[in-house]
Amino acid sequence: MSNRNEEAYSIGVDYGTNSVRAIVVDVRTGDELATSVWAYAHGEDGVLLDERDPNLARQHPADYDEGFVLTVRAAVAEAGIDPALVVGIGIDTTGSTPIPVDAHGVALGLKPDFRHDLEAMAWLWKDHTSHEEATEITARSREQGAPYVSKCGGAYSSEWYWSKALRCARINPRVAAATHSWVELADYVPALVTETALPALKRGICAAGHKAMYHPDWGGLPSAEFLDGLSPGLSRWRYSSKAVPSNRIAGLLAASYAHRVGLPVGVPVAVGAIDAHHGAVGAGVAPGTFVKIMGTSSCDCMVAPLDAALPDIPGVCGMVPESILPGMVGIEAGQSAVGDIFHWFSHRLVGMSHAELSEAASKLKPGESGLVALDWHNGNRNVLADPLLSGLIVGESLHTTPAEIYRALIEATAFGALKIIERVEEYGVRIDRVVNCGGIAEKSPLAMQVYADVCARPMLLSRSSQAPALGAAVFGAVVGGAHANVATAQRAMTGVRSDGYQPDVARAEVYRQLYGVYSQLHDAFGGVDGVEAPGSGGKLHGVMKELLSIRGRARGLA
Amino acid sequence: MSNRNEEAYSIGVDYGTNSVRAIVVDVRTGDELATSVWAYAHGEDGVLLDERDPNLARQHPADYDEGFVLTVRAAVAEAGIDPALVVGIGIDTTGSTPIPVDAHGVALGLKPDFRHDLEAMAWLWKDHTSHEEATEITARSREQGAPYVSKCGGAYSSEWYWSKALRCARINPRVAAATHSWVELADYVPALVTETALPALKRGICAAGHKAMYHPDWGGLPSAEFLDGLSPGLSRWRYSSKAVPSNRIAGLLAASYAHRVGLPVGVPVAVGAIDAHHGAVGAGVAPGTFVKIMGTSSCDCMVAPLDAALPDIPGVCGMVPESILPGMVGIEAGQSAVGDIFHWFSHRLVGMSHAELSEAASKLKPGESGLVALDWHNGNRNVLADPLLSGLIVGESLHTTPAEIYRALIEATAFGALKIIERVEEYGVRIDRVVNCGGIAEKSPLAMQVYADVCARPMLLSRSSQAPALGAAVFGAVVGGAHANVATAQRAMTGVRSDGYQPDVARAEVYRQLYGVYSQLHDAFGGVDGVEAPGSGGKLHGVMKELLSIRGRARGLA
Repeated sequence: MSNRNEEAYSIGVDYGTNSVRAIVVDVRTGDELATSVWAYAHGEDGVLLDERDPNLARQHPADYDEGFVLTVRAAVAEAGIDPALVVGIGIDTTGSTPIPVDAHGVALGLKPDFRHDLEAMAWLWKDHTSHEEATEITARSREQGAPYVSKCGGAYSSEWYWSKALRCARINPRVAAATHSWVELADYVPALVTETALPALKRGICAAGHKAMYHPDWGGLPSAEFLDGLSPGLSRWRYSSKAVPSNRIAGLLAASYAHRVGLPVGVPVAVGAIDAHHGAVGAGVAPGTFVKIMGTSSCDCMVAPLDAALPDIPGVCGMVPESILPGMVGIEAGQSAVGDIFHWFSHRLVGMSHAELSEAASKLKPGESGLVALDWHNGNRNVLADPLLSGLIVGESLHTTPAEIYRALIEATAFGALKIIERVEEYGVRIDRVVNCGGIAEKSPLAMQVYADVCARPMLLSRSSQAPALGAAVFGAVVGGAHANVATAQRAMTGVRSDGYQPDVARAEVYRQLYGVYSQLHDAFGGVDGVEAPGSGGKLHGVMKELLSIRGRARGLA
Repeated sequence: MSNRNEEAYSIGVDYGTNSVRAIVVDVRTGDELATSVWAYAHGEDGVLLDERDPNLARQHPADYDEGFVLTVRAAVAEAGIDPALVVGIGIDTTGSTPIPVDAHGVALGLKPDFRHDLEAMAWLWKDHTSHEEATEITARSREQGAPYVSKCGGAYSSEWYWSKALRCARINPRVAAATHSWVELADYVPALVTETALPALKRGICAAGHKAMYHPDWGGLPSAEFLDGLSPGLSRWRYSSKAVPSNRIAGLLAASYAHRVGLPVGVPVAVGAIDAHHGAVGAGVAPGTFVKIMGTSSCDCMVAPLDAALPDIPGVCGMVPESILPGMVGIEAGQSAVGDIFHWFSHRLVGMSHAELSEAASKLKPGESGLVALDWHNGNRNVLADPLLSGLIVGESLHTTPAEIYRALIEATAFGALKIIERVEEYGVRIDRVVNCGGIAEKSPLAMQVYADVCARPMLLSRSSQAPALGAAVFGAVVGGAHANVATAQRAMTGVRSDGYQPDVARAEVYRQLYGVYSQLHDAFGGVDGVEAPGSGGKLHGVMKELLSIRGRARGLA
């Protein structure tokens, strides 16, 4: 280990939904010397879409390679440092974003035979085409008494690894036959830049545990029997029997990449992880510190000592040993759409800017619009863990304004956030403070104040505005030997801002009442406790599902 | 009676929400020779608003006087006829739109002392400030076993005469003390232009019966005991112990008005009625012909022979002998917002034109948006008869477009229309055909096709595009002796267009499914059969009311 006061730099590379960014960080202070961002070249804002199916969201794997080279090279050049002082690289990505690869680890989407096949591309986290497969995986796991969904809130998601792999096996035999394995993006990029072949690939426990049903309790990945029962041969796609945390080295930067980015050959590259989890590390996650990464969706991260022996928490995405910090159980929850909802409303629906809507919405008092919304426009990840839900808004009058609805949508996401906080506290997770980071935390004072008032807690802000990349750099520093462990690296490199958002007592009281209404709708439409509406001809829980089913038939998809 | 083939003209004057129109009609054919429209001078589009209270909607009585003079004069001049050939004038107005008047019948709002007092103005039909009073009137009537709400669907409305008079008595003692009586606009205008003093005023049975609890079964207006039990002295506001249909003469055109409009003194003016009811007459209402007047709101009118002895129909606004046609029971139902909802969405919310939205929405297939809405943005008039309801939309995704929502709102109003059709048929009203008139029927092929598909029936169109004014002219012709009775006048003067909208079987089938979803939401949020959602913490029926209550407190109104 090098002297901690010695000049040294770490690089964090963060693969988001629409772009990739690289930062160069001083390991002694966390100072971010340079940042480079590159928007993916393919698709609409980096996402390959299919106009016939709004559930589909893919990415072109070529963007991952090009993105690494362009952003790391630019950041290193801009930082003006001696490249020899770069001790390590950390990488985080969206997830679960599995990519079908051949026996050499080459993404199928890069091969001429498959370049027009959407199934051969990366299946982006927010791809929801696999909802039937997710339901089947959950049902089978429960039927067989298998433990596989117990660590992910009791329900497997359409966003996750095995749902996607299974769906491809079902609907695209050509791609399935050519696929040697499905590799998570968080594993794919470190393997790519270190030229690590599949058999030697170090699989990150973060994505494996939260998205692919990996858990030490059952010896790693699900059994061949279970997987092949879903689809014969599915088990052949398992890779790397042991998954490890990001304080481990995935490999050393390969010469071909080192030359292209302007770094020495052999810089250690940390095992990859999911963006939000590294974001939590960059925002200072620790026992008692609940980190919310608020962007297009939200991801809530918590940790607890491994020996705390927390029970499984129903409706929470995942509880995985060492997935966020070594020595801690990592707990991930979140909402499947946050900023995406605000963006949909402002840009697709009313054609107004966030600034304009926020200014008008900021002048409203809680409750005065008479509106309450459900924030399920992209399904519900927690605590209902049900992708087949949709948005709802109630209380519209002939005087309802765009700003009122915009605010109601912000409030809806805050209520959804509070549902998660209440659930994890109920199951013994300590929450002393909430630290926020991500685009919404940075850019929407209105949203953050609403969250503080709705949750009746201060909303603190991460000092870094690029917490995932900083978290990646923390691991880069650790694998590079600049810090003894992640905790000391976090103490040196991360922190919270002195400002933040304090709750207002009067507003919090009105929100308490509105939260009661939200909870009624949440439970009725979400099917909590098998809520029924006798005399209304059926379960309101069925309403959203029936509409999705009618929609599917109308579009000729079912 | 004059020879029916003799040249003669009738004038119909129609007071709408935003403007007044007069037409000159050939009594032999129904040909409309001239039309003149004048937009009210006061308020926003003719409506006086209070930005603190979205429930408030008033009108300035000066607009009624000026509107008559300007439009009748212009129409007579434009028609180029000999004014001596005008045999009669018919008048219809919005309602219930009661106006406080002094002992001389002068509207208080015209008097200098009250010119800044919104309570002294006309309380427009869509003013919903009196919802508590409406609830109280319904409750008291039921408690006392009084029959007064039995003919108006079992619930008195905040839009109606006594709710408004009672509220003014409660909240504005100065106006109440100066008020000799509250006169319905449909009675006010004929009295005004015939200079008929209050004691001699001929009260129209249409507004009296549908809005002021007048019914022959209980000898006319409610008892003094009942009214004074609501507020001491309320009974003094009753006027005209016997109400009559519009084939009766209200009075003769006074010299002062005759000179100003260019007509002979003494032209007979028919007893006034509510616009939609005269619209039904102008569209050819008869037993088996269900007429929908579709504008900002909708009004559905039916008639049945007096001797058919129909039972009271729960949740339907009113069943009043001779309120639409002499010799028939008049049945009125309707929706408290139709065009208003489309206008709100297009203009207040997304800032797109109806043309643009309709074009995109027309390309959508039923069900493909995955959306269902409730059309209660202005409360629900039928069949729930509950003003304390609000809008709802469910099924939004991050891909939902403005056109999809626009179409869902149109569909919601069509589902609401179907609820009414089903209810009245269930209680024995025969419906052989549906004839539509009003702005939506004229201007929105999309809406009319959706209605045909949702209701699985043809939607016919009234030949006249100004059916209420034509209906008024029918009564002008009858009181002027140009026709023996209303039925013969209707046969000569009204009809349906040869085009119309036919239902499509495939679309109707999808709408049948969506109507199932609508009905579930309708019953749960509308409180049908005391639908509850056990485990959700309360009744969903309470959700909209609670939001309105929270909104009221947030705005400092409660």
